[in-house]
Amino acid sequence: MEEGLIRRSEVAKLAGVSEATVSRVLNGVGPIKEETRDRVLEAARQLNYVPSALAQRFARSRSGNLGVILPLLPKVNLFSTFYFSEILSGIGVTAKEHGYDLLLLFRKPEEPRDYANLFKSQKVDGCIILGAQNVPGERAALKELQEGNYPFCLVNQRFDGESYNTIDADQRMGSHEAARSLIRQGYRRILFLNGPAVYSNSVDRLKGYHQALEEAGLPITPSMVLVGNYSRTSGYQHAEAIAGMIRGGLADAVIAANDRMAIGLLQGLKERGLRAGEDVAIIGCDDSDGAKLTDPPLSSIVVPFYQIGCEAASKLLGAVAADPQDKKLQPVIQVKLPVRLVERASSSVIST
Amino acid sequence: MEEGLIRRSEVAKLAGVSEATVSRVLNGVGPIKEETRDRVLEAARQLNYVPSALAQRFARSRSGNLGVILPLLPKVNLFSTFYFSEILSGIGVTAKEHGYDLLLLFRKPEEPRDYANLFKSQKVDGCIILGAQNVPGERAALKELQEGNYPFCLVNQRFDGESYNTIDADQRMGSHEAARSLIRQGYRRILFLNGPAVYSNSVDRLKGYHQALEEAGLPITPSMVLVGNYSRTSGYQHAEAIAGMIRGGLADAVIAANDRMAIGLLQGLKERGLRAGEDVAIIGCDDSDGAKLTDPPLSSIVVPFYQIGCEAASKLLGAVAADPQDKKLQPVIQVKLPVRLVERASSSVIST
Repeated sequence: MEEGLIRRSEVAKLAGVSEATVSRVLNGVGPIKEETRDRVLEAARQLNYVPSALAQRFARSRSGNLGVILPLLPKVNLFSTFYFSEILSGIGVTAKEHGYDLLLLFRKPEEPRDYANLFKSQKVDGCIILGAQNVPGERAALKELQEGNYPFCLVNQRFDGESYNTIDADQRMGSHEAARSLIRQGYRRILFLNGPAVYSNSVDRLKGYHQALEEAGLPITPSMVLVGNYSRTSGYQHAEAIAGMIRGGLADAVIAANDRMAIGLLQGLKERGLRAGEDVAIIGCDDSDGAKLTDPPLSSIVVPFYQIGCEAASKLLGAVAADPQDKKLQPVIQVKLPVRLVERASSSVIST
Repeated sequence: MEEGLIRRSEVAKLAGVSEATVSRVLNGVGPIKEETRDRVLEAARQLNYVPSALAQRFARSRSGNLGVILPLLPKVNLFSTFYFSEILSGIGVTAKEHGYDLLLLFRKPEEPRDYANLFKSQKVDGCIILGAQNVPGERAALKELQEGNYPFCLVNQRFDGESYNTIDADQRMGSHEAARSLIRQGYRRILFLNGPAVYSNSVDRLKGYHQALEEAGLPITPSMVLVGNYSRTSGYQHAEAIAGMIRGGLADAVIAANDRMAIGLLQGLKERGLRAGEDVAIIGCDDSDGAKLTDPPLSSIVVPFYQIGCEAASKLLGAVAADPQDKKLQPVIQVKLPVRLVERASSSVIST
């Protein structure tokens, strides 16, 4: 701090003005004659004066940081998760292009969602929320952000009836395509291993699956829908019940709502002597690196997570850069990026 | 801001003091009677008063952020890289435990290394530097940090002769162990595929390899050391030359300085009809997820990257929390965590 004070006095001396005037010019506070302003800026330039960036930001109410809320889950290495690593890379590269640094804000499941405070305390200028859930605490926190006119963006989570900025993938399209492909190949007893309904993308995927069954005139049976928690373990744990259904002729295919559950299931079925692509067709979702490495390789839905991260950051930082007076006039951003099915050996043509 | 001002006046009213006194108490500035201090704190508590965190930090010169410098490489998804994702997870979890948020600072290769400015502008309270290189620009930037007494920590990069905080893995031990194991199995013509010498861990690994050869009375031949850039592609590109050496009886084993190069090499050799574990022994380094998934599975050096991240963050934040007056008295932290070899089919026993 001392360094800054000494140098501000030097700028004042060279420009022939008071230190307070230097501050006012550099912080853009209050009316200043143009001639005075130019003299101060020229003196600052000559002396290569760098005012404390925190002081600048304090005056301007800018942090230069893009915040990203991340769920901190026990025993999950977030950055090693395909989903988060891809989205974060897209956000990081785009923030850098816009001259922003990335402030990662880990939230434990039991912690309150005090998102608005990040803005009030000027830790961030905008905020991307990953892993948002449709629960009362989340809805209240988002409502507070909106009412405070704080720029934020949700990723992969819609709140129907709310006009929040959202970048999403067309998950409904993905599971619709997966189910249609299985039906086309002759599969008729297709299980759906979904994630929790607090995530809108779980709900969307279920809709796509139901739609495909309806279109094909197949019955919609609640017992054909199972629910895991998107972990590999939860896929593995469903293997016993699903193996029983396959052996009993009650199931011939499974669509899993993400690759990790599909890979866990695949392993659990293998341990029970059932092989994907032969005894049962399996399709995952995400097209993670792991999908290409399983035996057999896993069919999956390609979701452009990296691009989703880029879109979220660039749309949000565009809104942040807009004149604060115009914030209310910013259009709501709601993007849904397309997905596509990639078929591998785990869902090969049925041979009956 | 307005909300904060209104509420500060409420605190002042309830405590029966001026607003300036409230500020001085909450910012810990200047002498205050204990009785006055207690009255203000009690009033603030009753009113649930949250002063602008930025204002607080401004007064205290604290940002609440732990900075992490990351190299931004073209076409590399950093978070999907085993090395960075593991270290960042360790740093992130530990920062959270200490009440710090993580500020990621991406640096493009051509950008200047203005680390000290992060502290001067109070964006961070401490800084971990990943991917530091032994080049003049880096050495100058680190010297400036040290002279400014700014708390920082290097990961996996030593600068001999400098007393910088460093958390490292014992890379020398790792390649020594790998080479010893190959020699024990009967391999005699062991290539070393290293990374660039600007990384101290490249230099360390080479020393361990040389040490093992010397101990076994084997010749140290410069032409047996090849240099890639730690990418999978660079391992793949070395396959042609290495295949020639294997076929010509000039090489029977390869130690690669990371798994990505080993995996690229493995693939390149396979395309040339040479199989790891049969025609040549290959050992990588990092024990990444990919090592377990190759065909054949890759022998590797287990490096505790997650723990390295935890250590770096906890040691550094311990130093940050210390009284600023004592900073010069903080001991230099130089930790070298042990590594170990895990043997898989890619380096099976020679069958001659």
